Amino acid sequence: MILELVTMSVKPELKAEFEETYRQASPLMSRARGNLGHELKRCVETDGRYILLIKWATIEDHLQGFRGSPDHAEWQRRMHPFYAAKSFIEHYEAV
Amino acid sequence: MILELVTMSVKPELKAEFEETYRQASPLMSRARGNLGHELKRCVETDGRYILLIKWATIEDHLQGFRGSPDHAEWQRRMHPFYAAKSFIEHYEAV
Repeated sequence: MILELVTMSVKPELKAEFEETYRQASPLMSRARGNLGHELKRCVETDGRYILLIKWATIEDHLQGFRGSPDHAEWQRRMHPFYAAKSFIEHYEAV
Repeated sequence: MILELVTMSVKPELKAEFEETYRQASPLMSRARGNLGHELKRCVETDGRYILLIKWATIEDHLQGFRGSPDHAEWQRRMHPFYAAKSFIEHYEAV
């Protein structure tokens, strides 16, 4: 299992709308092959900062499967208006 | 539930020893009041980078409970030799 960690900076005045859009767009990610769940979390210390934790069966399910899919393009199209900066993406493996 | 996200930079030549020390020190964290589990993850992209994901019942269980405890001091004492830089700590809440 691979954990994708996405760190996002969202325009503070659009937080509520961002969270609602995330909920509506979630099936795009849930139905991707190898997706084992995802969770959005809001930072306590920094206004507008969020992390998205996504579990994938393999790193290829993310980088080659989901990223090349029309669902990913649609996800990006819906989420992009809310970002105040480029998101930061890393992958983590179990220790 | 509050998620504590700790981003750590470990001296690459000490990774194996760090991971073993983490395993041995884990009970110090597990037995803290309000600790609901913790996981160490190794970054795929950046050598020596780790995240520690710690679930707390409340943020006070971390900031006032664990942080002020002798177990926290012991945790720090065991982990500190492996760090290449200061760790970065944030808290996240469910959306």
